[in-house]
Amino acid sequence: MRQRTRDQDIGDRGNPGGLFRNGTMDFLAGWLLGYTQQGGMSPGALLHCYSLIRDGDPQSWVSVFTRAGQEARHRAQRAEGAGRVEEAAAEWSATQIAFRAALEMVDPRTSEAQALTQAMSEAFEASLEASGAVVTRWDVPFADTYLTAYATPGLERAERLLMIVGGGDTYVEDLWFFGAKAAIERGWAVLFADFPGQGDTPSRGLHFGDTTMAGMRTVADAVRERGFDGDLVLLGWSGGGIFTTLFAADARPSDRVTALVASTPVPDPGSFFRRALPRVLQREPESVLVRTALAVARRNRVLRAALARYDWQFGPGGIAGIVDRFDDLKVDLSALDLPVLALVGTAEFGESLRQSEEVIRHVEAAHPASRLMPFDGWTGAQAHCQVGNLPLALARALDWLEALDADRQAA
Amino acid sequence: MRQRTRDQDIGDRGNPGGLFRNGTMDFLAGWLLGYTQQGGMSPGALLHCYSLIRDGDPQSWVSVFTRAGQEARHRAQRAEGAGRVEEAAAEWSATQIAFRAALEMVDPRTSEAQALTQAMSEAFEASLEASGAVVTRWDVPFADTYLTAYATPGLERAERLLMIVGGGDTYVEDLWFFGAKAAIERGWAVLFADFPGQGDTPSRGLHFGDTTMAGMRTVADAVRERGFDGDLVLLGWSGGGIFTTLFAADARPSDRVTALVASTPVPDPGSFFRRALPRVLQREPESVLVRTALAVARRNRVLRAALARYDWQFGPGGIAGIVDRFDDLKVDLSALDLPVLALVGTAEFGESLRQSEEVIRHVEAAHPASRLMPFDGWTGAQAHCQVGNLPLALARALDWLEALDADRQAA
Repeated sequence: MRQRTRDQDIGDRGNPGGLFRNGTMDFLAGWLLGYTQQGGMSPGALLHCYSLIRDGDPQSWVSVFTRAGQEARHRAQRAEGAGRVEEAAAEWSATQIAFRAALEMVDPRTSEAQALTQAMSEAFEASLEASGAVVTRWDVPFADTYLTAYATPGLERAERLLMIVGGGDTYVEDLWFFGAKAAIERGWAVLFADFPGQGDTPSRGLHFGDTTMAGMRTVADAVRERGFDGDLVLLGWSGGGIFTTLFAADARPSDRVTALVASTPVPDPGSFFRRALPRVLQREPESVLVRTALAVARRNRVLRAALARYDWQFGPGGIAGIVDRFDDLKVDLSALDLPVLALVGTAEFGESLRQSEEVIRHVEAAHPASRLMPFDGWTGAQAHCQVGNLPLALARALDWLEALDADRQAA
Repeated sequence: MRQRTRDQDIGDRGNPGGLFRNGTMDFLAGWLLGYTQQGGMSPGALLHCYSLIRDGDPQSWVSVFTRAGQEARHRAQRAEGAGRVEEAAAEWSATQIAFRAALEMVDPRTSEAQALTQAMSEAFEASLEASGAVVTRWDVPFADTYLTAYATPGLERAERLLMIVGGGDTYVEDLWFFGAKAAIERGWAVLFADFPGQGDTPSRGLHFGDTTMAGMRTVADAVRERGFDGDLVLLGWSGGGIFTTLFAADARPSDRVTALVASTPVPDPGSFFRRALPRVLQREPESVLVRTALAVARRNRVLRAALARYDWQFGPGGIAGIVDRFDDLKVDLSALDLPVLALVGTAEFGESLRQSEEVIRHVEAAHPASRLMPFDGWTGAQAHCQVGNLPLALARALDWLEALDADRQAA
């Protein structure tokens, strides 16, 4: 494969490279290929799209994937009309992922983004129906609006519930691939949702920060109100590693949070962002560093699109306030009193590993099942969120959670 | 994605490109990514391998995939030892495909190739066992040796049996991905085998040509001897499109061949190869064309490795005799009297489409269910053998076969 010769690109997230020179596009391209293990677009369709996209040109990315979504939807509708059920389910999943890919580089404030979100969501629901998946949508009232959740019917009677929490780049529909499908197939009761700042919640005035935590508490309460009386288990991805770690540390006894799996647990998000994104996200907008960073971003249109999206998710003040905002979400590690599994890609930013090690070191004395689980390049799960081999990460996570249960029952 | 600027490369087979400049490597890389929809190596592990391989260097391909196989086998063994069943099944499948990938560019006459074949085969059987797949190995005696087949237990009692036939680049273990898994999941009785010239049969003195047809007849007879009394349905891929078309045309009434699916049916293989590979495979070794072709091949080490493999599969005379050998396998179309489904990628060599159209035109009057089914780039199945979206091609094939049955029962 051709070697990359490119500048440091904050869009890189441990991706092996070779698909695009642009780091953000390359990470996304690998992520989308990773979905093929569980559905989504086929590898052949993705490679076809990649061959049509101009490297580093977000508009070309958007128009190619929009077309791919339209083509897949057309095939889904025809298969459905002809009673070809298996094909229809696969094509609806491809439709979801094609529109979702387009959405990643479109200005989220536009009607184009709204239409793509709607089309993605409808395709996801059609794929669930066509594949006979047992999960239903559940809009949970929050503030003056709602949070979109999906849950397995009958969760009220379950002994334990897996709550999946995504990050800054996920929509609730993505979480199907980040554990919902895998856990449901193993018989788990599952809940996954867009919390404030995620998915299309910024269009309803909800942003990342304390409100995200309030949203999680509201959903956890709503589950109890439905009659669920069991244990709550958390699975957090990317930014969800911040929120689940804090939720676990601040949990009320009635939450009955018994285990945390995160890729990766981030107890000190302020420091994380200060180290991960120093050039772009330092305050003091007049500093030389920030001016340099903005000049880089202006040349990198993909990065500019990504930053615009993050701005939208953070609301007033935008992403420039990320360090401040997340300093408020720092976890008091002494309050973290449960077994933790930290999933870490060895190609990820080093701070992910450092904070994961800190968490495990803290909890393992009281909870010896706690583990740091690294994934190297040969496993395919080396990148951020294990996007290149999610089934491996998920099998490990679910095996670990089930072993915890077995130990508890034996005790 | 970076555009390819390369010479015409006979290793290209309708692959969208972007993974390697070398056409053979690029096709194989897309093929391996295609397997991720049904198992095999993860996208992340494949991209990791691709990032380590020197473009156009077969030795680097072999050593990277051999290492990948060793790493996957190690993970499989550890998972098995720890009772992590789902992970073990996935890692054995990854092991199979890593060793199989290495095998593609190794000299097939060496002990290294033998060891890789053995390791691939063992991993395949371990993956079947770990995943609980219901299929068992069955070595069918042939000439002074045997043909390796796999079959679903209880096929004796089935009303119909799907026989899957690969091509010049498949091993019997690959056929798991070319329909065996998909058909078994839909309740079909299935048989798949390495016929003479395929897999490791050349190492036992078996080569492509009339012997391949004799091998197919022997296996069809062996199935009847086991007590199978139903209809036989053929599914042929690549070179298997030649052999299944001829088998269907020459079938004895006792064979009860009721339908043919091929990607693609090739009734006139001599003309096919004359048009597909004119520069390398023309006879008259002293001609300017052949000398030019050999000069090209000498510069392209991957192509040289591929040609050495084909030489081995053709036995005495090697691949230089391919046109003569295949002229003998030309099908008398008037003898082809059954419904045919032709699967064709629109990015494939045009002769595939031309011969498919000829076949369908011939059979559709008597068998109106016959169909030409093209796949464009948006479907992901545009390349040779639909390697970029096999589940789509397989769903279409199985839906078509099941509809034939329903029609027959209604009639």
